[in-house]
Order: sequence, then structure tokens, then C-alpha cells
Amino acid sequence: MHHSDILIIGGGPAAMVTAGTARQYYPNKSVTVLKKGKDSMVPCGIPYVFGPLLESVEDDMIPCGDMAAKMGTELIVEEAVGIDFEKKRVAGKSGESYGYEKLIIATGSVPKIPRQIANHDAPGVFFVPKDPDYIRKMHAEMAGMKKIVVVGTGFIGIEIANEFQDSGKEVTLVGSRLLKHSFDPEVSSYMEKIVENKGIVHYKNQRTCEIVLDERGHACGVKFEDGEVVACDGVVLATGYRPNTDLARKSGLSMRQGDTIYVDEYMRTTQPDVFAIGDCAEKRHFITKRTIPVMLASTATAEARIAVANLYSINLVKSFSGTIAIFSTVIGDTCFGSAGITEEDARKQRIDITTTVVTVPDKHPAKLPNSHEQAVKLIASRATGQLIGAQVVGGIDIGEMINMLGTIIENRMTVFDLLGLQVATHPLLTSAPTTYPIIVAAQNIAARTLGA
Amino acid sequence: MHHSDILIIGGGPAAMVTAGTARQYYPNKSVTVLKKGKDSMVPCGIPYVFGPLLESVEDDMIPCGDMAAKMGTELIVEEAVGIDFEKKRVAGKSGESYGYEKLIIATGSVPKIPRQIANHDAPGVFFVPKDPDYIRKMHAEMAGMKKIVVVGTGFIGIEIANEFQDSGKEVTLVGSRLLKHSFDPEVSSYMEKIVENKGIVHYKNQRTCEIVLDERGHACGVKFEDGEVVACDGVVLATGYRPNTDLARKSGLSMRQGDTIYVDEYMRTTQPDVFAIGDCAEKRHFITKRTIPVMLASTATAEARIAVANLYSINLVKSFSGTIAIFSTVIGDTCFGSAGITEEDARKQRIDITTTVVTVPDKHPAKLPNSHEQAVKLIASRATGQLIGAQVVGGIDIGEMINMLGTIIENRMTVFDLLGLQVATHPLLTSAPTTYPIIVAAQNIAARTLGA
Repeated sequence: MHHSDILIIGGGPAAMVTAGTARQYYPNKSVTVLKKGKDSMVPCGIPYVFGPLLESVEDDMIPCGDMAAKMGTELIVEEAVGIDFEKKRVAGKSGESYGYEKLIIATGSVPKIPRQIANHDAPGVFFVPKDPDYIRKMHAEMAGMKKIVVVGTGFIGIEIANEFQDSGKEVTLVGSRLLKHSFDPEVSSYMEKIVENKGIVHYKNQRTCEIVLDERGHACGVKFEDGEVVACDGVVLATGYRPNTDLARKSGLSMRQGDTIYVDEYMRTTQPDVFAIGDCAEKRHFITKRTIPVMLASTATAEARIAVANLYSINLVKSFSGTIAIFSTVIGDTCFGSAGITEEDARKQRIDITTTVVTVPDKHPAKLPNSHEQAVKLIASRATGQLIGAQVVGGIDIGEMINMLGTIIENRMTVFDLLGLQVATHPLLTSAPTTYPIIVAAQNIAARTLGA
Repeated sequence: MHHSDILIIGGGPAAMVTAGTARQYYPNKSVTVLKKGKDSMVPCGIPYVFGPLLESVEDDMIPCGDMAAKMGTELIVEEAVGIDFEKKRVAGKSGESYGYEKLIIATGSVPKIPRQIANHDAPGVFFVPKDPDYIRKMHAEMAGMKKIVVVGTGFIGIEIANEFQDSGKEVTLVGSRLLKHSFDPEVSSYMEKIVENKGIVHYKNQRTCEIVLDERGHACGVKFEDGEVVACDGVVLATGYRPNTDLARKSGLSMRQGDTIYVDEYMRTTQPDVFAIGDCAEKRHFITKRTIPVMLASTATAEARIAVANLYSINLVKSFSGTIAIFSTVIGDTCFGSAGITEEDARKQRIDITTTVVTVPDKHPAKLPNSHEQAVKLIASRATGQLIGAQVVGGIDIGEMINMLGTIIENRMTVFDLLGLQVATHPLLTSAPTTYPIIVAAQNIAARTLGA
């Protein structure tokens, strides 16, 4: 039997961060990663292998082997098929078994199969798993296709549609309003204009019920519930992911809503010495405290760092107070970010909120070249002024601006705190100090309570 | 006698934010701005009127008149020459006097005159005041000059040197290491390489003792203490600013170190109903609590918002706990940000610190086009892990990344808090979730205490 002090099941970003962090904090402990396949992909980079930005699938690989070697971690290509929590060992498909002192489950997520769509498994229909062999084959098969239908208007659907369009294909996008879980309707409308200006045809509020097949049995169209058919050469079903928890469930771990593994704030499961992190572990929302299906590499790696810090004793007593659901993306040349709760979602959950939107140029004076419009929407608790959600639209600096807003939300700052927030402003880098939109937005909300 | 409820002396960003915020919070109060000159410039935009990015000085104006009209504020062009705190009135140079209920002094700063440099007031020698008439004249006179010497290696000196060089002039920059108050030596060295690669000649550690004059009495060179002379057509003395507090001092306000007006955490001076904000008001450092000469429009506007919120009663009890000295700039195509205390300064002040530097690509996978190297230096209290300083180098998103770090410093977050920080990562916008440099740097420091 193989034994290691710290055993990790998985091979994605959370698993690799766990391995590296474990080696850093506990240099005397042996660390082993059990990984189903040989390679791993940078998950959020997958849409970009289908566009002009990356030359091949190989440009989007995580060099797990090199990383493991550099970290002094053992990496074994092996599928875990069972866990015996009593004996503290994991059974491998090869017949080998792997003993552990501490076990971290980071098995990630896999595409959700939309069984309601007939012929979803036909040739010419693709999902977007984080599986390099699958993506290589998909990439090769789709290279010659001219007309593509992408079903799904979440991040992966929109990004992959954008990349196919940029590489000269005719793209049709099918689904409800764009990124509806992360952005409010007015932001989705703005995204829709960009998508349409790019020439992507967007079918809103159409439900796909069938993949139409040609005489070879290959996908040649997509049929909606109202009978309309859009002809195409290939279909991408970007219809979401489900936690990859078959192993955990059949091994008897306690599960939660959405088929996730139960974890406490230190990422501990109900079994002693067993932790779960990333897409396979339960996520609670920072604001609503409800279980939500947020699957993000950045959240997963945050959980990895917390799990490892608390592996042998609880070192981070404050620890994880839930996911703030923080996202960013690019559509056309415009960047979008969201953190916390949307206005729509807050109202649905009967949270008493107040909101504002501020739009300014992202350079100052605005006459400077390459100035871009920057919009910030803040959502705050009406009674306390605590910031609970933010959405931003603008240029490339939106990527870090949403992280600043995430930091504000995680610190439970109020709009009153933000009035005195000190920011660096620079003509070429930010809006003016007088108009810095996060602060002006906070002031608009504060003015509803202050003075008058 | 003229009377207004809220009277503001000044015309820069802090004065305008004060006026706008006062109108927003107290719509029933009359607001008047006493402004020495008719126009105002965007202060940090001034260097850019000398380069290819802005077409003329007029592109860098703050439309104070339009703004005041829009806000419902009275704007009077008048120089304040005295304040009678007993009678609550300000004397104007025109002979008019201006009564007030609340007075806010926002008189800003003016160039420091380096009296140790002989002939510093000769024709062909320029300062960089925030005075549109001066800048217009300087711009016209310098347009035809080929060889320029810029004395001073703070933000204005470096930025103006960069702009002159970009508009085809031969530029010599004189002063100590670049931006030494905001960045540590290794960052200055990196900046120096960029400056030299651009073709700017940089005289380090040379002290200018004299402006050499031609037979007309016009500047034709700069002479150093060791006797070396650099010939030129014109000289810019970017040798710092001093608070513009002559009015406050002669009116009898209590002053502090560096000739600044004493203010408490609510921006109140020692006189009832009199506030001071911006460059003319004392700044205490968030970390060291000492008085420091930070002069920033963003700090000034933060103080403006705090002063107005507390004008009639203390509404923001938490209020201002000192400046974090947060800056950003661009040299060549590389962006730099700093917040909090530098390592050099912390060691000088005997703060027990620990530091780390992490360098990563700012996109992921790194094969994506336009990927830029991004470096983050963190400075933390060794005992508690509290983040007290940060310096960042990279692409355009550095502008908001330093604001995120400023938010972290203002919230007194520790490196342990940062381990679980949730950030949005996206291939085209940020580094990878596994390598996000703020978190990896925090982990490097945390690892010195955790585990092992």
C-alpha cells in the first residue's frame, strides 16, 4: 500500500494549490496528488483555445508534472474509485490503495447533461469539460465547421461564442438574458448590444428541445420549443456544470443541496481528517448564507489555502464566511465584473436594498486617448449602508476594480466608510479623484441618509 | 456684505467636491466658492499637456463655472486676503467681504522655490504651478525648445520628462533615485532602466546649484555642485510643493509642522465652524501617525467628503485615520503603484517588518497576447501580519490593483485574512487564480508563521 501524509484527489487549480501550499507550510510531510488524467487545462482559458488568441489547445495546459516536481510533490495518474474513512485509505482503479493522514477531495465539476434536449449526445454536439483529450478532439472536429450554435448564456457559453465569432465562424447563441445570475437586466442589455454588434445572432428566451440530425446522424441544427430550427454544422452545449461527487457520495460522505459535499468554514467534511474544496464542496453565499452553485477556480483556490492552513490545527479562526460570487469577463472590447448579490436577486430574497449607478470616463481629463466609459452599480443594505453587491463595466482595469469591490464587500464596508476611502488616481490609469465612481456611487447612497 | 451658509476658499478638486457634496447633503443651504483665478486645471493632468497625448492646455481644464452652475453653487472670482473668525467673515481683495456659517479652506499648494539654486527665477526657468495662465505661457515658450533639463525626480518631474521626451525633445533628468518616497530602491532601479531606454539622460545624485545664463540672461544650462554643466534651452524645476497657507497663518489659524493647517480627524481647524482640507491641511500617516507632506487630489477629495459629512454635526464617527499615501503613475509603458509605507521608510522608523515580492504574468495562460509581467511587493508587520505597505509594477490594471491594496491596508487586513480573499480571475484580465500575486505574496509571509 502506498502511503502519504497529505493525499489530494484531483488535478485542477485547487488540487495544485493545495499541494504547493502543503509543501510550503509542512515541509516535512509527504504530499501526493492522485490525478485521473495525465494533463490538466487552465479551466477558464478553455474558451480561448477556440479563438484567435491561443494557437492551440497545448497553450492552455497546466504543467502539473513540472509543478509537482518543483514542489517536491508526488503526482500519480490514478482514478480514485473508493474511500475507506475508517482505514484512512483510498482505492485506486489500478488496484493499488493509498493511505493518508489527511485527505483533501478536490474532484471539481463536470458538464451537466441536459437530458431534456433530444439527441444531446449525437456526433457534432459538444460539451465543455475540463478534459484535455476531449477538448483536443472537439477543437479538431470544429475547426472546419462554419456555422455553430452555442446553447447557454453563462460565462462559458458567451465566451466561446465570442471566440468562434472572432475566428470567422457564424455563431448563434441561445439562452435567456446574458449572465443573468451575475448581472442585472440593464447590464445584460448592454452585453446583448455588444454581442449583436459583433454579428452573433442571439435567440433570447428560446428553449432548445432537440438537436436536429442529418442523414448521417450528425448534428445539423437546433430546434426550439416553438418549432423554429436553426441550421448549423455543430452545437456546443454550455448548459452548466454539476459537482463531480460520485466518489464522495458512494464512499458515504455527508452531502448537501445540489449534490455538493458538506463542509464547515474550515473546509472539513463530516469525516475526521477529510477536507473537500472547490466545485465539489458546498458553497454558501456570503450575503444570503444560502447554498449556491458558484463554481470558480478563484474561490476553489481560496478554499484550498484555507483548508491547508487548518489541516493539522485550526490556524485561521476567522476563516471562510462564504463565497461572494465574484466574476469578471470580456465581451467584445468591453470588460464586466460582478461581486456579491445582484439587485434582482436581492429583491427576490426580500433584502431591503438601495442602489445607484455612476458612469464616468476611465481616464482624466476625458480628452486623453483610449478613454473608455466606466460604469459602477452599487447595491447596499438600505438600513445599514453595508455594500452587498457591485457590478462594473469598462476597460481592462475592470478586472482589478471588481477585486477591489470584492475586498470592500468581504470587509463589510458601508457606503459611509467609502466616503473617506483613499484611492490613487492618475490621468492615464483611472477616472478623476472628483468622479472616482465607487466613491461617488457610495456618496449618492449616503446622501439618502446624511444631511437634508 | 455677501453672505452664504457654506463658504469655500479655493478652486481645485477638493473645493469643487466640497461644493458638490454640500449641495447634495444640504440642498437648503447656500454654497459659495471664492476662487482666485477664473479657470482651474486638472492638477495631475498638467504633465500631459506637454506631451503628445493632449492637444492643448485647454484639454486639461476643470470647467468650474459649468460645474458650479450645474450644482447650484455660486462661484466668485475673488482672492481671499483675510479671515475674521470672530465676525465669521472673509475679506476679499476687491474690498467685498463674505460672511459664512461654515467655512472650508482649500487653498492647495504652490511650487516650493529652491532658493539654493542660483538664478532659479531667470527667464527660461519654469515651475509647475496649477495656474492655467502660467502653464499656457510656459507651454508656448517651451514649444520651440529642443533640449530640456528637468530638476526633480518626484511624480511631476518624471512625468513631465517622459512627456517632453515623447514629443521629440532631448531630456535630461536630475535628482536622486526615482520616486524615492513612494518606492523602494529595487523599484526605482527598474524605473531608471525604462527612463534610460527611452533615451532620457538621468543624472542621479547630482545636486543642481545654478542655472547658467546666456548673454541675454536666459537659461542655457544647469550647473551641478561638482562643476559639470548640462547645456539646454530651458529648465523645469519640479522640486516639490509647499502648502498655500499664507492666508490661514496671517489670519491666526493654528499651524502644524510643514506649515500646514492643524486639523482633527473630522477636518476641523482650531476655530469653530472652520474646516481645512487638501494640500493646505495637515496630513498624518495612517501607519506611522506622523505628519507627512503627502499632496494628492485623491486624498484631498476624500477629506472634502469627510468635512462636508461632518459640517453641521459629526455623522461619520469613524472618520479619517490618516493618509495611506497612495499613488500611481506610468513610465514608458509600465505602470507603478504604491500605498502605505515603503520598506526603506519602515526600517528607518524601526517598524519590525517582513516583506516579499511575487512576479507573475498578468494574463493566464501566459501564452495570451499582450501579457505583461506583474510584480507585487508586500510589507507587513512581522508580529501581527498586518499589511502596512504595497508596491506594484505592471500593465494598466495596476491603477486599480493599487486601489485594492489601499483598501486592504485601510481595513487593517493581515496576510492571514488575505489567504482566503476571493478575487475574480479571468484569462484576459488577471493572473491565474493559482498565482494571483497579492494572495501568493500574503501566503509567502504567512508561511513564516503557519505550519513548519
